[in-house]
Amino acid sequence: MEGHLSDGLVEVGPNGRERYYDSSGYGRPDGAGVRLAPVEAAYLLARGDLDAVDGMGLEAFLADTPDLVVPFLVYRDLRERGFYVSPALEGWVADHAGIDFVVHPRGDGPWDGTVAYRVRVVDERGSVRLDSLGDVVLAVVDEESELTYLETDRPAVDGTSGLEADLTADGVLLEDRVLCWDAPPALYEQGFYGQRMDREDGPLQLSLLEAAHLAATGVLSVAGGAAAVEARGRDAEGERFDRRLTVYRTLRERGVVPKTGFKFGADFRTYADVDSVSELGHSELLVRVLPADATLSPRDVALDVRLAHGVRKRMVFALVDDGDEIRWVSVSRLTP
Amino acid sequence: MEGHLSDGLVEVGPNGRERYYDSSGYGRPDGAGVRLAPVEAAYLLARGDLDAVDGMGLEAFLADTPDLVVPFLVYRDLRERGFYVSPALEGWVADHAGIDFVVHPRGDGPWDGTVAYRVRVVDERGSVRLDSLGDVVLAVVDEESELTYLETDRPAVDGTSGLEADLTADGVLLEDRVLCWDAPPALYEQGFYGQRMDREDGPLQLSLLEAAHLAATGVLSVAGGAAAVEARGRDAEGERFDRRLTVYRTLRERGVVPKTGFKFGADFRTYADVDSVSELGHSELLVRVLPADATLSPRDVALDVRLAHGVRKRMVFALVDDGDEIRWVSVSRLTP
Repeated sequence: MEGHLSDGLVEVGPNGRERYYDSSGYGRPDGAGVRLAPVEAAYLLARGDLDAVDGMGLEAFLADTPDLVVPFLVYRDLRERGFYVSPALEGWVADHAGIDFVVHPRGDGPWDGTVAYRVRVVDERGSVRLDSLGDVVLAVVDEESELTYLETDRPAVDGTSGLEADLTADGVLLEDRVLCWDAPPALYEQGFYGQRMDREDGPLQLSLLEAAHLAATGVLSVAGGAAAVEARGRDAEGERFDRRLTVYRTLRERGVVPKTGFKFGADFRTYADVDSVSELGHSELLVRVLPADATLSPRDVALDVRLAHGVRKRMVFALVDDGDEIRWVSVSRLTP
Repeated sequence: MEGHLSDGLVEVGPNGRERYYDSSGYGRPDGAGVRLAPVEAAYLLARGDLDAVDGMGLEAFLADTPDLVVPFLVYRDLRERGFYVSPALEGWVADHAGIDFVVHPRGDGPWDGTVAYRVRVVDERGSVRLDSLGDVVLAVVDEESELTYLETDRPAVDGTSGLEADLTADGVLLEDRVLCWDAPPALYEQGFYGQRMDREDGPLQLSLLEAAHLAATGVLSVAGGAAAVEARGRDAEGERFDRRLTVYRTLRERGVVPKTGFKFGADFRTYADVDSVSELGHSELLVRVLPADATLSPRDVALDVRLAHGVRKRMVFALVDDGDEIRWVSVSRLTP
C-alpha cells in the first residue's frame, strides 16, 4: 500500500484500517482507512509493510523529514521489543503533553487505553529539567544512535533512625569542621553524627552540616551558635550550603541519616534505619541536591544513575525551591 | 619534651634529634636538637610523644592554627599506615613545589632521599587544575574528614586497531548523524565505525565525529564533505566538538578505536586492539575531553574515577590546548 502526507499525518486508505490499526495497532482509524503518525509510517517503510509515502521510500522519507530520525529510532526499538506504541498526539492519548510516546502494556493495544510507560525522547546533547520528571521514562539517544531508557519516579523518603536520649556536646569550629573533644558516645554510636578521629576515642569530627543541625536543635554548643556554623558553610559553598542544609535537616526529621556521598560524587548517601553504627547496614540512596529549576545533560544523569546502580543504591535528586520545599525525583535504568 | 614555635617551625632541643629524627624520621636535625614542621608537632602531640608546644596541647595548638587540621589528617593517616613522611618544605625535599608531603618507601626514611608518593592535600571544596596532575597523589579530605587517595599518571595511549583495505562509502547527513545505506561491511566489522540500524543489514549510522574523520580521510563521501559535517557538530556542541574531534582523530591515528562513552558519562570508551567487531574485547579506557586549562572539583574527579573503577576501565582526561596538542592524564584510586 501507499500513503500520502496530509496535515502532518500519513493517510492510507481507503481500506488501511483493518491491516494497520485493527490487527497491529498502528495509527488511528479514519473511516475504513487509517491515519498514521510519520514515525509509524517510517517504521512501516523500514519493515516493507508500506510501499511508499508520496512515492518516497525510507531513505527519501527520512531525508525529507530529518527530525524524524531520533524518534524513529526509539519507536522502532520499542516496537521490536514487542510493544504497541501510540505516538502522543492530541486526541490520540490522554495527557500527551511532555511525552512523545505511550507504550501500552504487553498484549494491550491503543484501544485498551492502558499505559505501561510514558516515554519522552531526549537527544544526548539536549538538557533535562529535573522537575519535569517523576512520571515519565526518558529515552536517550546517544551520538552513536544507541538507546538508554531511564525510569523516573517520585519516591517517598523516610526512615526510623534517630537519637533516643537528650544529648549535649561542646564543639570548636576549626575551618570547615567542628571538633568535639568530649562528645557523648551515643552521638556517634546511635545517631551516626560525625566521624571519630581515632577509631575508639579522640575527638569527634562533625561536618558543617551536622554541626549546624545539632546546634539548631540544641544538642551542640559552639561559639556563635548555629548561625556561626552556617555562616562558615556559606563562606565555603554559597547558597549551595543552604540547599544542602535544608535537605540534611529534612532527612534527619524523617528518620533518615545522611552522610557524605563524596566517594560517589553525590551530596549524600543515606541510611534509613540506623540503630547503632556498629550494626550499620548498606546505605540505600545517593542524593544529589540541586535548585528546583536545575537542568542536567542526559550524560550527567546517565553518569549518576550508572554509578548508583553499580554500588546498589538508588539515585535521588532533591530539588529545593526558594521556599525550602523539596521535590524528590528518583532515576533508574530501565529495560522495557 | 616541649617545643616552641620559631619562624614557623617547632624547635625541640637541645637533645631532640636522636628521639625524633634519628629514630623516627620526624623533622630535620638542628645540631643536637630538631626542628619539626607544625603538622609533625601536631601528630606528636596527638600521640603523647610531645608534651606541649609553647604550653599548648593538641586541642589548643589546632585551635591556634586552624589551617593545620586538613594536612594533619592526611599526615596522620600516612604515618599510621607505616610510612615515614617528610613535609614538602624548601630544603627538606627535592621538588617541593605543588605538593605537601613526600611519602618515603616503606622502611626508608628522610635520610634515604627516596620517594614512594608525592602527595598534594586537597579539600573537597577546592578545585583541581587537571594539567597540574600526572606525577602527584591527591589526598582529598571530604566534609566528614574522610580521606581518598587518587594517583595520577601520564599514560601512553596507543593500540593496533585500523582498517586494512581502502574503503569508500556514501552517506547522507541527517541531523546529528550520517546514514550510509550501502556501506562496505568492513567499515563496521573491521574498523568498528558506526552502528548498524539493524543487526545484520540496514543502514550504517555514523556519529558526527566518525563521519568527520572518515570524510577527512577520503573514505566517506557526503554532501559538503568533512566541512559540512564539522559545521553540524559545531552547531550542536560549539568548541567542544572541535576538541572531541581532535581527540577522536588522534586516537584513531594511534590505532585506538574511540566509541561513545555516553553510558559511562564520558566522551569515549576506547578499544586498543580491534581485529573484528565480532571478537570485540573489553574496552580499556574511559576518556573525558576537556580544555587544557580545565579545573574540576575533587567530587567530580572522584565520581569519574569511581565509575571507571566499577566497570574495570581506566579513567583518562584528554586535555586539549589551542594548538590541538593533547595532554593525557590518568587518575585512579590508590590505597597507600
